[in-house]
Amino acid sequence: MSIIITAFERSPDGGKGLARDTRVRWALEEAEQPYEVRLVSFAAMKEPAHVALHPFGQIPTYEEGDLVLFETGGIVFHIAERHAGLLPHDAHARARAIMWMFAALNSVEPTILELVTAKFQEGDKPWSKERMPLVADRIRQRLGQLSTRLGDAEWLDGAFSAGDLMMVSVLLRLRLSGILDEFPKLAAYVARGEARPAYKRAFAAQLAINAGKPANG
Amino acid sequence: MSIIITAFERSPDGGKGLARDTRVRWALEEAEQPYEVRLVSFAAMKEPAHVALHPFGQIPTYEEGDLVLFETGGIVFHIAERHAGLLPHDAHARARAIMWMFAALNSVEPTILELVTAKFQEGDKPWSKERMPLVADRIRQRLGQLSTRLGDAEWLDGAFSAGDLMMVSVLLRLRLSGILDEFPKLAAYVARGEARPAYKRAFAAQLAINAGKPANG
Repeated sequence: MSIIITAFERSPDGGKGLARDTRVRWALEEAEQPYEVRLVSFAAMKEPAHVALHPFGQIPTYEEGDLVLFETGGIVFHIAERHAGLLPHDAHARARAIMWMFAALNSVEPTILELVTAKFQEGDKPWSKERMPLVADRIRQRLGQLSTRLGDAEWLDGAFSAGDLMMVSVLLRLRLSGILDEFPKLAAYVARGEARPAYKRAFAAQLAINAGKPANG
Repeated sequence: MSIIITAFERSPDGGKGLARDTRVRWALEEAEQPYEVRLVSFAAMKEPAHVALHPFGQIPTYEEGDLVLFETGGIVFHIAERHAGLLPHDAHARARAIMWMFAALNSVEPTILELVTAKFQEGDKPWSKERMPLVADRIRQRLGQLSTRLGDAEWLDGAFSAGDLMMVSVLLRLRLSGILDEFPKLAAYVARGEARPAYKRAFAAQLAINAGKPANG
């Protein structure tokens, strides 16, 4: 059964790999599953045909025969559950890997999303300059805790898992801000993720679509 | 194997059921699993013994023999996967129920967390009054999309699932703000969740701990 995902026709990040289709591409590459990509414009994302797939009018979506999924966490979990390479066999280790997926998306990413909102939706507001350090400090607090837990380990819990895939993807959003580099252990952890052949293939695939298409073009 | 969860010794909400142990209690009640509760003070949550269980120094945690989990989504998923009542048997419906768990935690709750942050961490800032409507409008946008998808259905995708448990729990955080009541279909959906006997037992259990303990006491 062929897998079809959706991605931005033109990613707001111009191909830096931060759009969420990269997470799904990465999971599919780790699982060695071929997939097709349907590109969607910003206008088309809000049209009924796409909203029928994704109620929040975003990308990515995942279609596999009769199954339609949206929401990156749910898509990556579905891939991880059905193919080797992303979840450990041991029941306890598996539960912890899934726990880290949720932790990335609900305990780490929300603080980072506040920074994105502060920049792109409130960057022109009079409070922007004074407020930004507060937002950044809340991220630092969470990253400090995460760095302490990771310590000198290679991955969050034994072998690389879907939990690491999600955590690395979430942390990557911080690189441009410079905050990630304040936590050398986390920066090295993210670099290990990016060095995986599956990540490289996923990154290259999204770049091939977005290269030469300026985000504001 | 007995299950032990942690909860606030004194919940910041004074027993309104918004602390995240309620989500885990609810899942355990739906699954008809007995559990014990260990109460943790704010000070103890930051101590090494608790941080060893929960790297972000929060509640709830979940202990079951050798297995230790933190992160509500991961805990509820673990319960849902191992007991009847929270995930459908059909493979596609199961994937969609899990997708809705992630959607609640990563596409809906982050906008709501911004409101919590704006109130409790930035409520005294000079920009608070002017900024709050922007935060509320971002929540309204997401809730409008969710309400459209739910329509007149009882639950998000067929029978009640862990996806509904999580979405109702996330939406409950909005009740005091009045925003939930602007979306009658979602308000009715939340009320259906609260009417479930398992939810009522979970709510009563956390209230029994917090009743008579003022949050600022």
